[in-house]
Amino acid sequence: MKKILVIHGPNLQLLGARQPDIYGTADLKKINADLKKHAAECGVTLEILQSNHEGDIVERIGKAKGRCDALLINPAAYTHTSVAIRDAIEACGLPAVEVHLSNIYAREPFRHQSLIAPVCRGQVSGFGPASYRLGLDALLTLRYNKRTSKG
Amino acid sequence: MKKILVIHGPNLQLLGARQPDIYGTADLKKINADLKKHAAECGVTLEILQSNHEGDIVERIGKAKGRCDALLINPAAYTHTSVAIRDAIEACGLPAVEVHLSNIYAREPFRHQSLIAPVCRGQVSGFGPASYRLGLDALLTLRYNKRTSKG
Amino acid sequence: MKKILVIHGPNLQLLGARQPDIYGTADLKKINADLKKHAAECGVTLEILQSNHEGDIVERIGKAKGRCDALLINPAAYTHTSVAIRDAIEACGLPAVEVHLSNIYAREPFRHQSLIAPVCRGQVSGFGPASYRLGLDALLTLRYNKRTSKG
Amino acid sequence: MKKILVIHGPNLQLLGARQPDIYGTADLKKINADLKKHAAECGVTLEILQSNHEGDIVERIGKAKGRCDALLINPAAYTHTSVAIRDAIEACGLPAVEVHLSNIYAREPFRHQSLIAPVCRGQVSGFGPASYRLGLDALLTLRYNKRTSKG
Amino acid sequence: MKKILVIHGPNLQLLGARQPDIYGTADLKKINADLKKHAAECGVTLEILQSNHEGDIVERIGKAKGRCDALLINPAAYTHTSVAIRDAIEACGLPAVEVHLSNIYAREPFRHQSLIAPVCRGQVSGFGPASYRLGLDALLTLRYNKRTSKG
Amino acid sequence: MKKILVIHGPNLQLLGARQPDIYGTADLKKINADLKKHAAECGVTLEILQSNHEGDIVERIGKAKGRCDALLINPAAYTHTSVAIRDAIEACGLPAVEVHLSNIYAREPFRHQSLIAPVCRGQVSGFGPASYRLGLDALLTLRYNKRTSKG
Amino acid sequence: MKKILVIHGPNLQLLGARQPDIYGTADLKKINADLKKHAAECGVTLEILQSNHEGDIVERIGKAKGRCDALLINPAAYTHTSVAIRDAIEACGLPAVEVHLSNIYAREPFRHQSLIAPVCRGQVSGFGPASYRLGLDALLTLRYNKRTSKG
Amino acid sequence: MKKILVIHGPNLQLLGARQPDIYGTADLKKINADLKKHAAECGVTLEILQSNHEGDIVERIGKAKGRCDALLINPAAYTHTSVAIRDAIEACGLPAVEVHLSNIYAREPFRHQSLIAPVCRGQVSGFGPASYRLGLDALLTLRYNKRTSKG
Amino acid sequence: MKKILVIHGPNLQLLGARQPDIYGTADLKKINADLKKHAAECGVTLEILQSNHEGDIVERIGKAKGRCDALLINPAAYTHTSVAIRDAIEACGLPAVEVHLSNIYAREPFRHQSLIAPVCRGQVSGFGPASYRLGLDALLTLRYNKRTSKG
Amino acid sequence: MKKILVIHGPNLQLLGARQPDIYGTADLKKINADLKKHAAECGVTLEILQSNHEGDIVERIGKAKGRCDALLINPAAYTHTSVAIRDAIEACGLPAVEVHLSNIYAREPFRHQSLIAPVCRGQVSGFGPASYRLGLDALLTLRYNKRTSKG
Amino acid sequence: MKKILVIHGPNLQLLGARQPDIYGTADLKKINADLKKHAAECGVTLEILQSNHEGDIVERIGKAKGRCDALLINPAAYTHTSVAIRDAIEACGLPAVEVHLSNIYAREPFRHQSLIAPVCRGQVSGFGPASYRLGLDALLTLRYNKRTSKG
Amino acid sequence: MKKILVIHGPNLQLLGARQPDIYGTADLKKINADLKKHAAECGVTLEILQSNHEGDIVERIGKAKGRCDALLINPAAYTHTSVAIRDAIEACGLPAVEVHLSNIYAREPFRHQSLIAPVCRGQVSGFGPASYRLGLDALLTLRYNKRTSKG
Repeated sequence: MKKILVIHGPNLQLLGARQPDIYGTADLKKINADLKKHAAECGVTLEILQSNHEGDIVERIGKAKGRCDALLINPAAYTHTSVAIRDAIEACGLPAVEVHLSNIYAREPFRHQSLIAPVCRGQVSGFGPASYRLGLDALLTLRYNKRTSKG
Repeated sequence: MKKILVIHGPNLQLLGARQPDIYGTADLKKINADLKKHAAECGVTLEILQSNHEGDIVERIGKAKGRCDALLINPAAYTHTSVAIRDAIEACGLPAVEVHLSNIYAREPFRHQSLIAPVCRGQVSGFGPASYRLGLDALLTLRYNKRTSKG
Repeated sequence: MKKILVIHGPNLQLLGARQPDIYGTADLKKINADLKKHAAECGVTLEILQSNHEGDIVERIGKAKGRCDALLINPAAYTHTSVAIRDAIEACGLPAVEVHLSNIYAREPFRHQSLIAPVCRGQVSGFGPASYRLGLDALLTLRYNKRTSKG
Repeated sequence: MKKILVIHGPNLQLLGARQPDIYGTADLKKINADLKKHAAECGVTLEILQSNHEGDIVERIGKAKGRCDALLINPAAYTHTSVAIRDAIEACGLPAVEVHLSNIYAREPFRHQSLIAPVCRGQVSGFGPASYRLGLDALLTLRYNKRTSKG
Repeated sequence: MKKILVIHGPNLQLLGARQPDIYGTADLKKINADLKKHAAECGVTLEILQSNHEGDIVERIGKAKGRCDALLINPAAYTHTSVAIRDAIEACGLPAVEVHLSNIYAREPFRHQSLIAPVCRGQVSGFGPASYRLGLDALLTLRYNKRTSKG
Repeated sequence: MKKILVIHGPNLQLLGARQPDIYGTADLKKINADLKKHAAECGVTLEILQSNHEGDIVERIGKAKGRCDALLINPAAYTHTSVAIRDAIEACGLPAVEVHLSNIYAREPFRHQSLIAPVCRGQVSGFGPASYRLGLDALLTLRYNKRTSKG
Repeated sequence: MKKILVIHGPNLQLLGARQPDIYGTADLKKINADLKKHAAECGVTLEILQSNHEGDIVERIGKAKGRCDALLINPAAYTHTSVAIRDAIEACGLPAVEVHLSNIYAREPFRHQSLIAPVCRGQVSGFGPASYRLGLDALLTLRYNKRTSKG
Repeated sequence: MKKILVIHGPNLQLLGARQPDIYGTADLKKINADLKKHAAECGVTLEILQSNHEGDIVERIGKAKGRCDALLINPAAYTHTSVAIRDAIEACGLPAVEVHLSNIYAREPFRHQSLIAPVCRGQVSGFGPASYRLGLDALLTLRYNKRTSKG
Repeated sequence: MKKILVIHGPNLQLLGARQPDIYGTADLKKINADLKKHAAECGVTLEILQSNHEGDIVERIGKAKGRCDALLINPAAYTHTSVAIRDAIEACGLPAVEVHLSNIYAREPFRHQSLIAPVCRGQVSGFGPASYRLGLDALLTLRYNKRTSKG
Repeated sequence: MKKILVIHGPNLQLLGARQPDIYGTADLKKINADLKKHAAECGVTLEILQSNHEGDIVERIGKAKGRCDALLINPAAYTHTSVAIRDAIEACGLPAVEVHLSNIYAREPFRHQSLIAPVCRGQVSGFGPASYRLGLDALLTLRYNKRTSKG
Repeated sequence: MKKILVIHGPNLQLLGARQPDIYGTADLKKINADLKKHAAECGVTLEILQSNHEGDIVERIGKAKGRCDALLINPAAYTHTSVAIRDAIEACGLPAVEVHLSNIYAREPFRHQSLIAPVCRGQVSGFGPASYRLGLDALLTLRYNKRTSKG
Repeated sequence: MKKILVIHGPNLQLLGARQPDIYGTADLKKINADLKKHAAECGVTLEILQSNHEGDIVERIGKAKGRCDALLINPAAYTHTSVAIRDAIEACGLPAVEVHLSNIYAREPFRHQSLIAPVCRGQVSGFGPASYRLGLDALLTLRYNKRTSKG
């Protein structure tokens, strides 16, 4: 596992400036810088995309195979509505980890269901920007674990 | 944050010996030893309970306030059925992180709902024994973050 | 009706110390003392159990027949999850009254359904520690009323 | 708390004469007399309305503020169908207690849901005419308890 | 069976003038006259009420016992929303037949459920003004049939 | 309207002998004889089928067009499960009336939904063998009423 | 369009005095005066009813045809429970606009469904007393627009 | 309030040319011109976007803060499927009004639920192109009203 | 109990030849032979029907009363769809036992609900051809047990 | 298969003394003695546990592997609420048979769903104490049958 | 693939004569003749069954194995109600294609669910009699494609 | 019908390279070439779009009217989530056919519902790349068939 594709979903370009009570005060630039630094210490490089377009995210995941070794994704609002991103992750075949800044299970009921989770290896939610770092660490633990038949 | 109460729910005493395809091959003794070592490196100590009894878990959480600073819990089967453990976590008021060995969102539908998640700060699921270490790391990131009003 | 079994369900050992905004500031010791005094004035004695264990509660109810004349129960979290306690109440055949400190119908939706209510004579909820005293008074009014065929 | 508005909902004018197996043998006149006597002993006076008209009940509650200090209501059939009475209770801002003669949770499923309960302080159900007296006692315990933030 | 209380629910005062495609062209006056004539031929008299007020209907049914021998009711819109009328019918204990001008099962889904049907002996729907005559005939056949335990 | 096809669904061959508390004591032979006599008085003839086979009923309805002028059907158990009979009635285009011996709305919940009702002109339920006669009368009232656009 | 019937549903007589955080501080008298003034400027007159009685509202709508040219209605609590008012609006055949002071879609789930909306031309909700004026303006735009076949 | 962002969702570029029975005969160009004229009369300027891309709409709302003072949005099909647009509106913090050309509550059931409504101040639906003008007027009334705590 | 009617539902004529992983390798001839032998040893005789026709099964059960003493039935696919067979079993009044070759609760969700179970004394499922023998043994234990009031 | 673990769930210690109309008149001591005798005749020995504690049952099943060869369980109330017992059975990997004294499909709806059934080989319900003997016989037939892939 | 069994479900014997707006004007004889001609051109022969009897269809499919190579079925009304036909198709193991004359997804909601689809290779719906020819072509493309593991 | 717009939805650019067990081994280039060749033989030309962007698909359909004569669409993941594409198809008014490579009814439950199907003439699913050719053939059969009023 050498290169990891990191995807930030819709509205995450606003991080830091808005609703800091839910999403924290760090902006995306800082989160990316911190994550790259942490990745470098772990011996992996990152390729990062923020997009508000479902189609862009689908396309980038579609091109990841052969170029990246794993996927770290915060699908944001698309968590609950995008079968297309789910299909892209399943189709690319790379190990994926889903992360969320807020604890989605403590918010509105429609945020409790993730269409993305069943095609990922695991999920980290609720730790603000730290969710990304924890998700990256989680991906790296998968280097030597195979996916189980049940999940 | 100096001392963390770690709780392993029902059937986790069997870890390592059974269903390694879902839960991995490490037994609970090794998981605990690894977690204690990691905790020591982070400057915290652990108090660990494995119990198959909902009532035991409720009681231990009830006594945690003042004795421990945070809660790391894998509620296992009680994730989906125990309002009593949920109430205990909410009543004790300590920051809590929920962890799962398997990706519960990729298993039977009844495992997709957690009664525990809404009263925790966050959740880590799907990374086998590494879920515990990631959950501990997550708890430590909360040292300087306050709980948000929404979740 | 001479002796009444009073049961306090899970987490009620914490009363007074935690979440006084929901459950009031009186602790269980004081509640029991007040209730015993009121019972004495009414000419009945009490046998009191607080347990976090569903099995303990089931067992005590199972032994109540012949020893006690009625049941006053605050099932707390088990209100919503315990078929076993429901079956125990139905099996023992004693008149039972269910009480709740908080108004369970003004809280989360999963607290609106009681598995216990259909096997009790009636329910008192929402009056803090006074719910117990009102529940006891209610039990005593049943002395001369037979259970109706419908409820 | 000096004056309490007591409301009897639809069909309660029939009490005593019909379905005594569900509702008891006391008629409304006797229930009101007993309740007034009990109120007098407690130092409060009662203003009593029986109406089969949802609109009448809404109007009387709307005029209660400033004239009465609390509300004791058996909404009968309107328990399950009247948003208007719920809104009236919420709008008047007086503490309210809901009572039922029968144990509504042991009858048909559509009687298990109360639209009224979430805007009351508490509920007493299942004790026949005694439910009124217990509900009045419950209201009086509220004299020195403030409503909690949760319910 | 000598005297039958006939009840027309809300909006039926408009019959004949509006929506003849659903409800036919006969007005209520003519329907009542025809029905009275038919009743006379069958040896029974009718007492007829049209009301848009749920409370009025509840009250009239409440007074029917002892004064009338049976109930013929077109609850119209209250079919789907009135627990109070259901309770009134059940409380009065008289045999009742429910009629509808239109076939309620071929209209909007919310009209497919009748709260009134379970407390009636039977139902006639879909035959325009003839539903009333058929309902009256149905009531008369009940003269010598007792209500079954199941329905 | 000269000839009416009468259909008795499954288990109705048992009428009279079994469960008289629900279905009455008249057997099918007598019901048919009475109905034929009544039809003759009304100037129509009957063609009668009792079948336990969904396919037989479908076929007979399929052949009714041109041969009969209307349909009187007690679909019995097939009321709740047969889309095929529904389609047959809709395809044949004849006016149809659905009848039931018992009040299906006062029995088990699965009997409250009729797949047949939306394609009939109306329904008569709950009057024992009299339901057939009332249904026949209802059909005859349709002679001069056209089907409405809504139902 | 010359005369418009304005209907205020249950509890709206309390406007201004209670819950100003939800419904604003203007009382009904002022709202009516402002609305009449605005109507006069638009060349229409108003006939105004406030009632807590479902039956009164049904009756007034039933008489509107021929007397008024359109209907402006804030059904308040009856929005969610009254099939009778829905039927009255549909029967009268006048163009109707539904208004709400609060944004009903941002309140309790049971307030998200309007039984009235499907029989109106449109809906305005969430703008406090201004909702009435906007609703009146909306009605006037309908003067030259016919109702579409779909709604 | 000086500048308002107006957003037209998917397929609205087709207005006027298609389905005039549902959406009216005015094309988008004319609607925009009329709306701009009306805005000028009210002393506000408009910034207008029509897009079929969920991502474009999300981005434009994300940039509105500081540039515009309010949001007028017809989310069209995205009303029912876009959590991303909902999150964008909530994140930008500007007062928003949702408008619909048709009465969405009189169309298919899946159009009765708006994911956008709970984060807007109010909604106007069913008045064709006039919905935009009414929505703009509604926004302007908000200039001096604060958002309530409930909705 | 001397003679037992054994019914094999649809597709069971294929036993042994198809899907042996679900239904085992014994064919129906052998199963019947083994079952008859076992019955003889228990002192009872069997009358056996395999039919793919719901109507045939209904008819045979309808004729069982007086001819047979009990019913052993594997309704196969009709378990989940036949109200007619349910009604036949209930009407015949004989004690019945339902058997299944496979564990229907470990298969597709629509197979978890049996329309037949509530009218039988009990159920045996999951033991392949042995389910028949166990079901027969179960029937014989009923010889001296009366049906309980609850089930 | 030499040794079988027999588990009796909550409230079964009361057998014989209470509700004989549902559960029969034999007490648990007699049932165990009869079952042991029958087991001995079949060449197997039994290890028997009755517990009201979910945790005890989980633990005993956890220790069964290597010690016992199969599991015969009447989970009683835990049938419907215990994911922990389900997980324990699945984890231990022994063939299991679920038994019930009453026909759970003829009782309250919440008793129709078994969380345990999908992880057992089969189920026997409704035959009183004979259910245990039939369940034991069923287990013994499994000696030479492997579990199928589907169930 | 040499011989294909073609099955026409209930009411299809009426094709051409009734409801041509839904099902087209061709009768079954012509459809069969056209289909046979097309089949001959493709080098396959057809065996054709029209039946209104679920049992007949089940039986014919049960005998298809070894006699036919594939199945082309229009289950008509049984699409939505027959588990027996589903089981027959699954048991016979032949590749099957489901066809519908009308677009079942544009009709009543109960027609949107097919019990048959999950056991077929694919489905063609909405093209009138052409659906059969397209379905046959589809079957022939399967000659060299194996069934996928997922569906 | 001379020119047909062919639309391939999200992730279909990956065809051939990934998950051949579900989607076959042909890549999109080959599928398009084969389809164009088949179209040419049928005398029609194709305009082909593959896009992962919902907005692009909406726009292209919006421009199709006047330029193309029909629509052949595999909406892939957007089948289940896009009201915008549904509205675009309905708005453009061209005959449309929906195709799927896999049998969507044999996959995850959320794939069983198509938002697109109700606005298409018909659907072909489950035949891999052949679904496109069959869908094209289906479109061509529509040349002389008008859309029915029901579907």
